[in-house]
Amino acid sequence: MQYNSFILPANTIYMCGHSLGPLTKSAKMQMEQGVKEWEEEGVLSWNKASWIDLPMQLGRKIAALIGAHADEVTVSDSTSVNLFKVVQSALALNPQRKIILTEADNFPANLYIAQGIAHSNTAITVSATEQFFENMSKDVAVLLLTQVNYRTGKMHDMALITEYAHSLGIVVVWDLSHSVGIVPVDLGGCNVDFAVGCTYKYLNGGPGAPSFVYINRRHYDSACSPIYGWMGHRTPFAFQDTYVADSGASKYLGGTPYVLGLKALEGALSLFSELDLGEVRKQCLINAEMLIDCLRKWVSEVLCLSPELPELRGGHIALEHNAAYFISRALIDEGLICDYRHPNIIRFCVNPLYLSPEDMVQGALLLGQIVRKKIYLQDKYQQTLKVT
Amino acid sequence: MQYNSFILPANTIYMCGHSLGPLTKSAKMQMEQGVKEWEEEGVLSWNKASWIDLPMQLGRKIAALIGAHADEVTVSDSTSVNLFKVVQSALALNPQRKIILTEADNFPANLYIAQGIAHSNTAITVSATEQFFENMSKDVAVLLLTQVNYRTGKMHDMALITEYAHSLGIVVVWDLSHSVGIVPVDLGGCNVDFAVGCTYKYLNGGPGAPSFVYINRRHYDSACSPIYGWMGHRTPFAFQDTYVADSGASKYLGGTPYVLGLKALEGALSLFSELDLGEVRKQCLINAEMLIDCLRKWVSEVLCLSPELPELRGGHIALEHNAAYFISRALIDEGLICDYRHPNIIRFCVNPLYLSPEDMVQGALLLGQIVRKKIYLQDKYQQTLKVT
Repeated sequence: MQYNSFILPANTIYMCGHSLGPLTKSAKMQMEQGVKEWEEEGVLSWNKASWIDLPMQLGRKIAALIGAHADEVTVSDSTSVNLFKVVQSALALNPQRKIILTEADNFPANLYIAQGIAHSNTAITVSATEQFFENMSKDVAVLLLTQVNYRTGKMHDMALITEYAHSLGIVVVWDLSHSVGIVPVDLGGCNVDFAVGCTYKYLNGGPGAPSFVYINRRHYDSACSPIYGWMGHRTPFAFQDTYVADSGASKYLGGTPYVLGLKALEGALSLFSELDLGEVRKQCLINAEMLIDCLRKWVSEVLCLSPELPELRGGHIALEHNAAYFISRALIDEGLICDYRHPNIIRFCVNPLYLSPEDMVQGALLLGQIVRKKIYLQDKYQQTLKVT
Repeated sequence: MQYNSFILPANTIYMCGHSLGPLTKSAKMQMEQGVKEWEEEGVLSWNKASWIDLPMQLGRKIAALIGAHADEVTVSDSTSVNLFKVVQSALALNPQRKIILTEADNFPANLYIAQGIAHSNTAITVSATEQFFENMSKDVAVLLLTQVNYRTGKMHDMALITEYAHSLGIVVVWDLSHSVGIVPVDLGGCNVDFAVGCTYKYLNGGPGAPSFVYINRRHYDSACSPIYGWMGHRTPFAFQDTYVADSGASKYLGGTPYVLGLKALEGALSLFSELDLGEVRKQCLINAEMLIDCLRKWVSEVLCLSPELPELRGGHIALEHNAAYFISRALIDEGLICDYRHPNIIRFCVNPLYLSPEDMVQGALLLGQIVRKKIYLQDKYQQTLKVT
């Protein structure tokens, strides 16, 4: 759809955007612009180049993608740090309750953050996915869920879950890392309390791009970040002795903004202002359907873990195979960049912004070849993996 | 000393490195390299280009500048977030005590972080600088100080203060933001417990470059970050359900590393491996002396707030004048980039890596001209400042 906007690795099919979105021309240009501003004006660029405005300016752009008001979103810190801030905030809104409820299959980084918080002053219930409705009760303070599962790519029903949790007085936090930019999100319509999300997957913000925070307007007066970052002060440059939180999402800002990362993200986000996310979703499901169809026909050796129902799918398709790791190595070696999740999952991104239905066919053909010819058993694929 | 390594703003004297260090050729090169890696290999660069190793690799380089062991330092998050982590850690090491002692004249961001922590489970004593020795007692859990004052540029005696605090069982946290890379720091020799510091001032890491954390080896078994970041897990890519902290400084890592910012910092730090910091200090004091001498002779209208004794000075000189803001605007307009701190301070960086004694003479001459001719009263300097 936007193939010309991306600079993809040469001679490859890049099916790993759910892990790290590819470089866009506009991100590259804005990065160069940021370095130029640093070079030519030094510290003056905080004002002259409006660096200081980047967190809220990019927050406004992301707000438009997730059904939020412009002032409800800001960009700051990592997803882990932002999760820490909003889960603590959510707990403070429910001071009589002490339980954080989450899902066993949530992304481990989310579980860790909850465990760190539970360590000091609260408890955590890690529920099986099938049981978290029955685990919701009036004892639960905070529900912490990820909208699209990082392994299976299955999407939760945000509206239904949020509504039910609210009926029990539970404050709801959603992690949008695997959904923002690729599936429909309507935080306002679902009346969500808090959300966070990473910007380096479907938003293509670059490796380790800073994360965003959403806080519903109705919590502006009562919610507060546990980390009193000076950028969240009402008047940071008055250098007052006492912290006074700003209003709106900006109170969730931390230290000095990560300008270089924000500049790349600024460029990457410029793509989305021209996009119809409904059309992206439609094309994404066409890609997914094409991939699954081809796999059914040609590669019966792998099991598709992603939902049968298209409306429950996110932006990637997960396949199970006992030799998943070695198969993923062989695929990469043959020019299809995918990734592996311990112990037996291969994930394929189907983002239509830079992947076509033909890429899906090519991917399935290649996978079939590697599996049937047992190419993955070759010695060279027995190396050790650190990250993909 | 290293003039050829920097790309300074054209036709200016850049005396603002204590706020944002200038771009180096090597930082620019590494940034471009990082974008190239993203472009050419996408997600594979986490391993192929060793992105995943950057936080500890850069930590090792910074360790060499602050008297720390290589494994005691890592680079992650902002200074504010890192302060939150280490102050909470320090409190947990002293569970019978509930007071954080700090200095009224500490950088406000440090006061805010302490206030945020005090809000939930502890108290804070903000002491006048002259009285913090007498305010130290066996009730104090944590002492939080910045080595070099952000306004006056006055340096604390780290060895003496840390030793006295330890004699009372106080855990000591130092903020090195205004000292790392420009003044001698010996965390190991002073037996400091925790430290943090920013990398965008004297280390020239770029706007909003990620910050570093130091944890003394003797706390490896007992100290723990309150934010259980997945990069601090012993085996982050095993995706285990339960958080198990890594050993060493790496347990203070947070979310996915800020690669683009880290690449710039990697380039910037390459300069320091060739430098003798003792020589930098010597030249820095020569610059400071030259500036102060010229000001005494030519600009008696401004009051020097920085210490008389050279050994108590940091890397910048602070001047007081009622029209400080307007004077700083006029200086910048005339090509001398300095900065202003509310309500009446102008700060001049004297970093010898890119500023010569001749620059000091030029700076003093220009300031004298602006003050004596009252150029700062011109209408065009009445604009509003957000950041410098």
